[in-house]
Amino acid sequence: MEEKDITNDEAKHEAGTEEANAAEEKPENDNNEVEAKDKQEETAKEAEEIAELKASLEKTTKEKEEFYERLLRLQAEFDNYKKRTLKEKQADQKYKAQELVTALLPVLDNFERALQVKATEETKSLLDGITMVYRQFLDALKEQGVSVIESVGKEFDPNFHHAVMQAEVEDKPSNTVIEELQKGYMLKDRVIRPAMVKVNK
Amino acid sequence: MEEKDITNDEAKHEAGTEEANAAEEKPENDNNEVEAKDKQEETAKEAEEIAELKASLEKTTKEKEEFYERLLRLQAEFDNYKKRTLKEKQADQKYKAQELVTALLPVLDNFERALQVKATEETKSLLDGITMVYRQFLDALKEQGVSVIESVGKEFDPNFHHAVMQAEVEDKPSNTVIEELQKGYMLKDRVIRPAMVKVNK
Repeated sequence: MEEKDITNDEAKHEAGTEEANAAEEKPENDNNEVEAKDKQEETAKEAEEIAELKASLEKTTKEKEEFYERLLRLQAEFDNYKKRTLKEKQADQKYKAQELVTALLPVLDNFERALQVKATEETKSLLDGITMVYRQFLDALKEQGVSVIESVGKEFDPNFHHAVMQAEVEDKPSNTVIEELQKGYMLKDRVIRPAMVKVNK
Repeated sequence: MEEKDITNDEAKHEAGTEEANAAEEKPENDNNEVEAKDKQEETAKEAEEIAELKASLEKTTKEKEEFYERLLRLQAEFDNYKKRTLKEKQADQKYKAQELVTALLPVLDNFERALQVKATEETKSLLDGITMVYRQFLDALKEQGVSVIESVGKEFDPNFHHAVMQAEVEDKPSNTVIEELQKGYMLKDRVIRPAMVKVNK
């Protein structure tokens, strides 16, 4: 019995040891479970953080791309605006004299009419002086790009000539300007006033 | 002995069970270790991913902010450019006649000089006609904003008058224009040519 007991005890002891071992392992197992639970929680937290970071990154990347696209669009708009205003400025510059030139054309007409008197001995010196002024006037306008439209003898061109009369002259070519009733003027490449003409049929 | 044996066997069996249990637990423990190692690796991986994501987010946020700042700067630059070009355009528009007006001032001078002849019976009609043209000329310029600078009798003002001669006339106030040698002209609020004057000391 003793032996048995011992054996049993031993066995029991053994078993006890195993139990003790098992018991010793239990808290470890509990610890593991807690740790595992902690780790699981931690993992869940990390997964959540990763998901949040990914969402933030996606959002921020999208916003960044939007800003970049707006930047590109604004830059393109700016460039176009610069080009357009430069063109407008150049056109403004090119034709800036137009308003004054237009206002001066009746002065030129009257000037010419006033000079179409026959010079006498008494008026010759005055007429010469005034004719010089007229030429100087015309030169100043020419320097600003004003030119007289050619008409008499030229083929009728509706871009430059305004036909106010028609004639049938047999010894002159048809569709040709045979008389100028009022001078036409251009400012650079722009017709300011077409020449008023009589055209042969 | 039988009992003992049995007991022992039982005990052994028990122990065996415990051993088996222990043995069964061993791989579990290994599994746990592997799992723990896996989890550790996983955790490390996740931590790495989080760090990478955070770095990416920081970088992207910084880039986003840079684009936003560039966008704001460009918008401000664009707005300034628009304001400046509008101002320039308005100034260009306001003074567009300046070049032609400047070129016409000597014509005006000569025109006036030519008209400063005494009218005789023979020249009267011509002079009247030419004077009318001169007035029309001046009116066209005035319509474009040209005006004559007042001088004689006015206090000398270096902004409008160019003193080319001095005089000492006792019965006239000092620092006053007593004679105009050449007319001065303005285009709107801008002096195109100051009046050349004689000033009393």
